[in-house]
This record gives sequence, structure tokens and C-alpha cells, in this order.
Amino acid sequence: MSTDKTGKKLHLNAFLMDTGHHEASWRLPESDPYAVWDVEYYKRVARIAERGKLDSIFFADSPAQGHDPTRRPPGKLEPTVLLTVIAGATEHIGLIATASTSYNEPFNLARRFASVDIASRGRVGWNIVTTAGADAARNFGLDDVPLHKERYDRADEFLDVVTKLWDSWADDATVADKEAGVHTLREKVRAINHRGRFFRVDGPLNSPRPPQGWPLLVQAGSSQDGKEFAAAWAEAVFTAQQTLEDSQAFYSDLKARTAAHGRDPESIKILPGIVPVIGDTEAEAREIEDHLERLIDPEHQKRNLAARFKLDPDALDLDQPLPLHLLPKEDEIEDAKSRYTLIVDLARRENLTVRQLIARLGGGRGHRTFTGTPVQIADTLQHYFENGAADGFNIMPAVLPSGLEAFVDKVVPILQERGLFRTEYEGATLRERYGLARPANRIHDVVDRRVGTAS
Amino acid sequence: MSTDKTGKKLHLNAFLMDTGHHEASWRLPESDPYAVWDVEYYKRVARIAERGKLDSIFFADSPAQGHDPTRRPPGKLEPTVLLTVIAGATEHIGLIATASTSYNEPFNLARRFASVDIASRGRVGWNIVTTAGADAARNFGLDDVPLHKERYDRADEFLDVVTKLWDSWADDATVADKEAGVHTLREKVRAINHRGRFFRVDGPLNSPRPPQGWPLLVQAGSSQDGKEFAAAWAEAVFTAQQTLEDSQAFYSDLKARTAAHGRDPESIKILPGIVPVIGDTEAEAREIEDHLERLIDPEHQKRNLAARFKLDPDALDLDQPLPLHLLPKEDEIEDAKSRYTLIVDLARRENLTVRQLIARLGGGRGHRTFTGTPVQIADTLQHYFENGAADGFNIMPAVLPSGLEAFVDKVVPILQERGLFRTEYEGATLRERYGLARPANRIHDVVDRRVGTAS
Repeated sequence: MSTDKTGKKLHLNAFLMDTGHHEASWRLPESDPYAVWDVEYYKRVARIAERGKLDSIFFADSPAQGHDPTRRPPGKLEPTVLLTVIAGATEHIGLIATASTSYNEPFNLARRFASVDIASRGRVGWNIVTTAGADAARNFGLDDVPLHKERYDRADEFLDVVTKLWDSWADDATVADKEAGVHTLREKVRAINHRGRFFRVDGPLNSPRPPQGWPLLVQAGSSQDGKEFAAAWAEAVFTAQQTLEDSQAFYSDLKARTAAHGRDPESIKILPGIVPVIGDTEAEAREIEDHLERLIDPEHQKRNLAARFKLDPDALDLDQPLPLHLLPKEDEIEDAKSRYTLIVDLARRENLTVRQLIARLGGGRGHRTFTGTPVQIADTLQHYFENGAADGFNIMPAVLPSGLEAFVDKVVPILQERGLFRTEYEGATLRERYGLARPANRIHDVVDRRVGTAS
Repeated sequence: MSTDKTGKKLHLNAFLMDTGHHEASWRLPESDPYAVWDVEYYKRVARIAERGKLDSIFFADSPAQGHDPTRRPPGKLEPTVLLTVIAGATEHIGLIATASTSYNEPFNLARRFASVDIASRGRVGWNIVTTAGADAARNFGLDDVPLHKERYDRADEFLDVVTKLWDSWADDATVADKEAGVHTLREKVRAINHRGRFFRVDGPLNSPRPPQGWPLLVQAGSSQDGKEFAAAWAEAVFTAQQTLEDSQAFYSDLKARTAAHGRDPESIKILPGIVPVIGDTEAEAREIEDHLERLIDPEHQKRNLAARFKLDPDALDLDQPLPLHLLPKEDEIEDAKSRYTLIVDLARRENLTVRQLIARLGGGRGHRTFTGTPVQIADTLQHYFENGAADGFNIMPAVLPSGLEAFVDKVVPILQERGLFRTEYEGATLRERYGLARPANRIHDVVDRRVGTAS
């Protein structure tokens, strides 16, 4: 199943979280536990990613406090604000912010992303999420999270509205004729008059069309609904996969679905998440991983796992395998469906005890951990890239900034030497970075074609 | 009616709009009509205001395209994004962003302002608006703007929710005990469990308490509902007043209302808007004003004025007085009530023709234009400040950056010489700039008092 990728480069995104993806990373001697609310810290980390010529950095988000505040830093800076700060401290790297279609209004979000795209000169991406979790729902007047299908139906209409709003101004709307006193042409700024099941939005947007036309559209849900949504809209997809075979299956499935939506399969870039744990020797890498595992509180994680499985914590024994016969089925799960299935499959396939499963999830929460030397990690990435499993990778350092520095300074040069990764930034916008076209205008192109047809 | 202000300083905010408040400012030779979407332009203008030691800069906003795009630049950068950019390019000046309580969710806005306050190290303010205009309503699923009273009732509950969310974390919630593995104390991050007429929000916020406790709360509506809202919540108030007597009446009314809410009248700062048109001689100032007036299209402005008065444009004759008998009463107006009354009063008091009224509104849209030399303008500000009409001023340059530069370089030094304005920034936060206290915590103080009472 080898794919010919002659001359093609892989794409690398750095998924930045707090002081690292590992829940105990803030407890390491190197970590500043207050850094998670310090913009200077994130600027430094972003500059490391830019030094490595990475395509982009990315922040996850949910509008809820979420987890137990004792175990890992609770609360985050709002991603569009944080990435606007970072835009001012970097020149090239793409900036991907998560925002929810379930708990925002399309007009507000279209406008905010347009402004960040303008402020960053075309470097912003939007990771579109429908937001699992009753805790978020209860911050917005609901008793519980809306049904999975309902959330994706709303997301689909949300995207229809925001893309029309971004296209409500023609690219050449402003003429700025001082003599005639005409700043912007009336016919080039049009209402969208959207009337749908979830939204009624007249428009136009109160912003020019963003530099990228549309900010890069990113998505990370891997359920059936999530994959269909990605096939319809997404241009980059983050996904959690535990094996090469699962990655290949996901890759070919999503490319086929994208084609079925009438889109070029090359217009969607698939980036599995990996947690690289890098040592100069295998033994050193293993020691880093073990140190982190020892900082996990297994009883606390057992409670988290039980909540995900809708079980009483006492039903789980740390030193016994997961009780598979007690678990609900994926279609009984309304939150984070695909992550649920991945965890159950991992435990079943490797016959892990609950304690072993917790250790595997502590670093990447379901994303694959690669522990090894820089060459071993580069070999694995190349193998995935050249065998139909990935267009690139979502790099999730267990510890920041050291894990990102190790990747940038030790793995990236190997990928560059092998001709698999850029050595200089090309193009100006995030879309150009990912080799994606600037979208045609949905509102003004149609009008132009009609005029053309009539003439 | 002289007030003793011995040693007190006045406060100055720069209200920045596009290339200036005058609708034709973009047509001047000095103006770049594309600058309105260029963050570098706003950084330059903000640095001019900071050079003058001004308290703050401010951007208005509405979630709608709004006006005729030919006449003045349509669309704006979203203010929280723009001010985040400016935070990175300045060190001291306060940053006040407008956001609507009618078209946002309290959780999202509390979170965003908390993040901007963190990113700016305590320099952000929120200009709270309820948003007039059917065009905005129609971007959010409504047919028309909600009733005035309804908008203010929602705003009042909105403020109750956001202040509780900002207070949902105690200031000392995070202990970062690496050894014990305790990042943030569970009992110091509390749900708010708000249940009201408009909102149900469980909380807590997913952000630490902002550096200022609460971002500075700013308000600008001068209707009866608006003044009651300001008296309950606002710490700085922008207002449009045409005469000293009107300013004094507004000032004493709002201070009395604030006291009636159990608040110290000193805890609300009242800043009338002025449009300074500055020349080295009176003749030069008048020439600048005339030049701008000649760039207004009176027929276009006549249509705008007719729309505000709910009249057919043909009912207005440019060279006749305003037909007062045809106009609706303030209580028949649901949009921008107090501005409506101000315009009618201005036309009546000075017996202006429609053409003269348009010229008066072209610069400041109802705010008072002061045309004169630097000394004349400083004299007027001092007179207002020392006679119970203002705690400071909202400076609205007709043309940017030149109008702000003239104010900063020519008027500010006179105010400083007279001991009326700071010569260096004092304190670190915007609240300190305005001489306002950091708010007590509504959630965790109450709990602490209860504990104290019970012991």
C-alpha cells in the first residue's frame, strides 16, 4: 500500500497544551505552573515551532472549566485572543484556534476569525468543534449536551452561514475613490439573507473578505458524523489513531468520503496525532516516559475513566483488564464517540490492565505515543507518510517547551535531510503552507457568472 | 456651581474611529482609506495616545455592516482582537472594547475579556452596549431590535452573570504545589449556578480571575434606562452633550443616581465627548472645519437624518428648519433614544436649517465640536472640569492621526502645565489609571464572611 509521494513534503502542526499534553507535566522541575496563563510563555513556545518551520500551532478549547482543577491547570486563555498575541510575535507560522459551533453565533465567529486573519496577514485557521460535555451545555442555558447528530447538523448550517458571510464582500469591493467620495462599492457588499433550520442571518459581514478568502478550516472529530462533516468542509483533519493499520483505514476512508462530496482528495490534509518522547538513546527516551508515568495519580485517572464509561469507579480494578462486558456501545455515547471506541479497542487489542491503560492515556489521551531516538521517530513518521496513513502529523509534546525543542532540533533536521520537510517557509498564508487553494467566492462568483451568462 | 477639585486630575480617553470621526476624513490627502483594516495603523495611533499619557483608547462597535459603504469605510476590525494587537505594541494605555449584551452569551464574553485583561496585564475595559438597530437584530435570527427596556433588562442580568463568572475563581485559587500534585484548589473555583429570566449559567469560568478583578466597566447610553444601568454598573461613562448646562445636568443627575444605588459618586467617572478641531489660530481651526464640511454629501446625510426621524426624505428641505411638528417623541423611539433627543434639541435651540444641522453632526454625530486654538480648547476643558460638568473627556478626533497628534502635542501640555493632567503614568492597571478600586469578589468574599460569622 505504498503511495508515490515523490517530491511531496509532509505537514507538521504543533498542538500546544499548557505545559505539555501529559497531565503531570506542570509538576516537572523544568515547568512553570503559572506559565499556562502567561502570554510571554506561549510566544516563546510559538517561536520554537517557527524555528522548526512547522506549518502551524494549534490550541484546543471548550467553553467550560471541565476537569478537576487540582490535577492539571484548569482554565485556558481564549484561543483567538492568545493567537492574536502570538501573531504579533511571529512572522510565518500558522495559528489554529478552536471554537464551538454549538455555543457561538455564526455572525460573531465569522467576524472574529476574519479580524484575526487580517491581523495575522492570512495565517489563521479555525478548528471547528461541536463541543462534547454537559458542563459546557450548562454554561449556555441547556441541561445537557445536544444530541450528537443535532450538533453536527447545526455545525453544517453554521459553516454554510460563515462561509457566505466571509464571501459577502467581493475581494475588490473597496475602491477608495477620494475624488468621487466612493469608499466601497455598494453592489460588492451583499446581504446573504440566510434562512435555515438553526439560523437566520441577513448579513453582510461588517468586515472585508479575509486575506485567505476563508480562514483554513480544520476539524478533529472522527465519528461517522464527524467524518462526513470533515469530508464536506475540512481542509486539515487532526485524528487520534493507535496503529498504522487504523491510520491507513481512516486515511483512505476520509479521502474517499471527500471525493464523494465532489472535492479533490488532495484538498484535505490528514494529520494523525503523535506524542513524541525523544531521547538520544532508547533508554533515555524510556526513562523520560517512566518519570512522567510515576507522576500520574492512578486513582484519580480511574475515576475519569469510569466517568467516560458511565461506570461506578469501583467497577474498575487497577490491576485487572478493563471489564469489556460492562461497557456501553459507541452508539449509546453522545460525547466524544470516536475517542471512546479508540480507548476500548486499545485496551482490548493489547489486553491492558486499567493501570496500563491509564499510563498509555496519560501522555496523549488516546493519541499514539512514539518513544525513541530522533532517527526512530523520523523513520516512523516517514513510514506513515509513505504508506497511505498521513499527509503530516499533529505533534503533541508531552512536556513543553522541552518536548517541542527536542522535536524541532533533533527530528525536523532528519526529515529535512530526507527531503520530506521544508527548509524555508514558502508563500505567505497558512493555506499556502498546506498547499491549499484560496476558496472561490460563493456569493460574488455566482453573480459574476450570471452576468457572464446573460451577456 | 464651582466644584473643588484641588489636586484632582482629569481623565482623557481617545475614541478612535477609522481615519477619524468625520465621515469624510478618509477623503483627505493625508488619509489612507485602507488603513481602517490595517493593524499597523492602529498601533501607530495608539502610540500617539500613549505619548500623550492618555488614560485609554476606545473603539465603538456594532455586529452589523450598518451604513452606506460608499460614504465611509464599512466594516471594522473586531475590537477585542484589535485591542489585543495594540496591547502588544503599547505598555501603559488602557484598551476599551465595545461588545453587545444583546448578541453575545455571558460565558463567552466574560471569558474573552478575562483573556484580554490577562494578555494586556490589566489594561482592558468593556464598553457595554445593548446595540440599537434592526440591521444587527437581523444578523441574529430576529426580525427587529428588541424593545429598549427588554435590552436593558437583559444587560442587567448579563452583568450579574459575567461579574459572578469573573469572581468564580478566588484570587488565590492556584497554589501550584508540585510535590503534592495540587495545581489549583477545588474549593477556590466554584460554580455560580445562575438561574435568571434570560440566562442559566452554571460556571465556573474556565479562566483565572482577571488581573483587575473585573475589567473596567464602561457605558455610553444616556436614556433613562441607560442612566439607571450606568448608575448600577458603570465605572466610566461616555456621553454626548451639546452645552455646559446640559453636561452639568447630566453629571449631577448620574452622580445622584449612582449614590442612590449605594455607590460612592466618585466611583463613576463621567466623560463627555468632544470633537476638537485645533488650529494655531482661530482662523486656521475654522479653515480645517470648513474643509471637512465641504466634503459632506448633504443629500446622503439628509436621507440618514430622515431615517432616524422615521420620515420620508422629501419631508426635509436642506435650507429650511427641521419640521419639528412631524417628529416622533423620544418614547416612540426604540433605538439610540438619547441621541435622538439631543439632535432635536440642538436643532430647536439654535434654529438650524437641515443643512446646518448636518454640518454640525458630520464631525461628531451629536458630540460637541470645539473649534479653536490649543489654549481655547484647554480653557474650555478646564471650565467644564471645574464646574461640575465632567471628570474628564472622551476625545473624538475628526481626522486621524493628525487630530489626535494636535491634541496630544498642543492641548495636553497646557493641561499638564496647569496641573490638570498627569505627566507620567501612575499604577499598572486601567482601574488605577481612573483612580478606581479593584472590585471585591462577589462569590468568594461572601463565602469567607459566612465562615467568619460561623466561627
